[in-house]
Order: sequence, then structure tokens, then C-alpha cells
Amino acid sequence: MEIALLVFDGLTALDAIGPFEVLSRLPGAEVRLTAKERGPISTGRGNLRLIAEHDLSEITAPDILVVPGGGGTRALMSDEELLDWIRSVHRHTRWTTSVCTGALLLGAAGLLDGLRATTHWLEMDTIASQGAEPTGERVVREGKIITAAGVSSGIDMALTLVALEAGDEVAQAIQLSIEYDPQPPFDAGSPEKAPPEIVARLRGLAAAPRG
Amino acid sequence: MEIALLVFDGLTALDAIGPFEVLSRLPGAEVRLTAKERGPISTGRGNLRLIAEHDLSEITAPDILVVPGGGGTRALMSDEELLDWIRSVHRHTRWTTSVCTGALLLGAAGLLDGLRATTHWLEMDTIASQGAEPTGERVVREGKIITAAGVSSGIDMALTLVALEAGDEVAQAIQLSIEYDPQPPFDAGSPEKAPPEIVARLRGLAAAPRG
Repeated sequence: MEIALLVFDGLTALDAIGPFEVLSRLPGAEVRLTAKERGPISTGRGNLRLIAEHDLSEITAPDILVVPGGGGTRALMSDEELLDWIRSVHRHTRWTTSVCTGALLLGAAGLLDGLRATTHWLEMDTIASQGAEPTGERVVREGKIITAAGVSSGIDMALTLVALEAGDEVAQAIQLSIEYDPQPPFDAGSPEKAPPEIVARLRGLAAAPRG
Repeated sequence: MEIALLVFDGLTALDAIGPFEVLSRLPGAEVRLTAKERGPISTGRGNLRLIAEHDLSEITAPDILVVPGGGGTRALMSDEELLDWIRSVHRHTRWTTSVCTGALLLGAAGLLDGLRATTHWLEMDTIASQGAEPTGERVVREGKIITAAGVSSGIDMALTLVALEAGDEVAQAIQLSIEYDPQPPFDAGSPEKAPPEIVARLRGLAAAPRG
């Protein structure tokens, strides 16, 4: 089974690596980091770079597509070469998935029109403008399209996907092998749960002019 | 604030990227991927490579050290150059931390002797043999040393560390920005919670001869 993990400059690393760590443990799966050009990819923060091993021309019919998010999605929402590739591989996939603002690329490719979907909580209006029906659920499955909420949700999405592909026991074994027994020190991981002043501050930062 | 994130061939990617995603959002922090040699680092699974931007000689007095785990730790447990570097930077750190089998490197460097500590659930005996007192807690703080359990626990550890350094509100804002509101599809993330036959199978795989 071939799994294409799209990577690009301005990617949020955990959006990609959460699903990578789960899906690379799926027996028989090969996860291929795929970008417009092979070579180093700068993530959105600090000094972290990943290496794209494949370009788009090499990966034409993956079984699963995973599209992570990050600030770099903005520029790609109007990149017709990339959007054409997403549309093209989607015709072949068993599952087409996104994490965080990766959903904006599925939306820009026209794949979310009329579907329930999710993304980072600060970008719900954007997927609505693309024709999706935003939901507050963490992992949303509509046919073969699965969208996940912000950043860390890709771990939950990937375990859900493994269960669909290989059964609950395989998913549970992977969960145990990565000791995914989350115990966050605070209960502030969604806008409904975080202190209102923190939600307001992040909304203000997101609305501020950039650049 | 300088944060050294040790990377090496055979690293488990999520061990490093979980803390990276949290700590790179700490205001004023610079996370530096540091390895014995600069350049591409092969992670333990699939085709994922990261780039180490710094070698050990460049990073001599970080404020925080993060040591992730992975199969590659085995070879490094007897690498005196690396262990000397860990001992040396530990004299300067505010916090010395590990995720998963990164604890085995702290232990090999002699830093866990007599301390409560944790690691991946399959490696508790190893840190015991290094003089640590293993615990089943997910994040264990002993003075300035913080050890975390397997793989995904680095996210919880890093949020704990941000709260210690910058206060609860900063940690909560980061938790919300990465939407860390975990909802695993199963409750199988620790050996106490997973089905016993799955725990037994992973113990058997771990005990099998390797290589």
C-alpha cells in the first residue's frame, strides 16, 4: 500500500509526523514524502527541515493521500499544478485525508463541496467559503474523504484510518506501540474548553494583518 | 532561549516532533536540531529524513536539552563522545529532558542514577539497570530532569515544560493553537489499558532476536 504524504514549505511539522508515525507502522504500507520538487522542505517554525523523497510526477496513484496544513497552504490554494495533482490522485485513492489547514487544499481542489468537513478551529469560515459544511468534530469521514481538526488531530485521524483499513486490533497495537495515552496537563485544547481570554487572543492574532 | 533537540539515525520521528511543535511556539525560544554530524538524519521508519542543522561542537550550553528515542538509541548507549556531550551540556541546562527511549541515553550518561524516571513501557527494565527507579507515570520530573513515556508523550512533556518556564496561560495558548484535544478512537495507549493479548504480542515482538 502506497501512502502519499504531501509536504511543502511552510508545513506544520506535527500535522505530517503524527499521521506518519501511525501510518508507517501499518503492515505493508510505504509512506512517501511527496512535494512539488524533491529535496529539503522548510517547515513553518524554527529550523526544522524535512526531505521530500518524491516529486508529484512520481506518485500518480497512491492508495492513501495525506495532506497536512500550515501557513504554507495559503500560497498553494491557487497553485493549479498542485490542485490538479490532488484531483488526479483523488480519483485513484481509497482514502483522501487532510489534517488542519490541509483541508483548505482539498477545498481549493473542489473536493469538499457539499461535504461535512473540519479544519483548524480558526479556519472554519475558509472551508465554508469553499462549499464545505464545517463541523466541530475532531475527525470527519464523508465517503472516502477524511478531514481532521488542528495539528495534533492527525494522530487520531490516522488511528481511525488504520482501523478502517486493517481492523481495530492493528490500530490498538499501533496506539500501544506509540504509547498514545494522552494526558495533557491542561484541558485547553479546543475553543470550547480553553479559557475565553486565550481563545480571544488567538483569534485576534489570526485576524491581525500579516507580513 | 536555546533548546537543543538531539537527532540521530534511527530516531522515532514523533518523539522529536511532538516536543518541537510545542517548544518552537514558546516565545523567545530557538529549537536547534543537533546531531553528531550536520546533514540528513534517517528516522527509524519508512522514508522520512530530517536535517540536522548543528553538530555537537556548536551547541555547548543550551537552556533545554531534549533527547528523543528510537531504535537508534541502542548503538548510542556506548558512544562516549555523545554521552560526554550529554553530561557536559547537562551541567548548563535549566532542563534536561527525554522522550521514550531517549531516557536510555540519559541513563547511559549516568544522569538517572537514583532518580524516579520513565521511558517506553517496554524498556522499564533497561532504565532500572541504569540505576533509575522506573515509574508508570507519563511525565516524571526529578529536579531539572524530566523524562516522558513512549513516543507520543513528548507532547504532554513539552506542555508541562512550557508551563514551568512561561506559565500556565502560555502553555494553554500553545495547546489551543495545536488543537491538542486528544480523542483517540480506542483506549489502548498503555499496557494497563490495552487488551492483554495485544500487550503480550508486543512484548513478544520486543523480546524476539533482532537483526
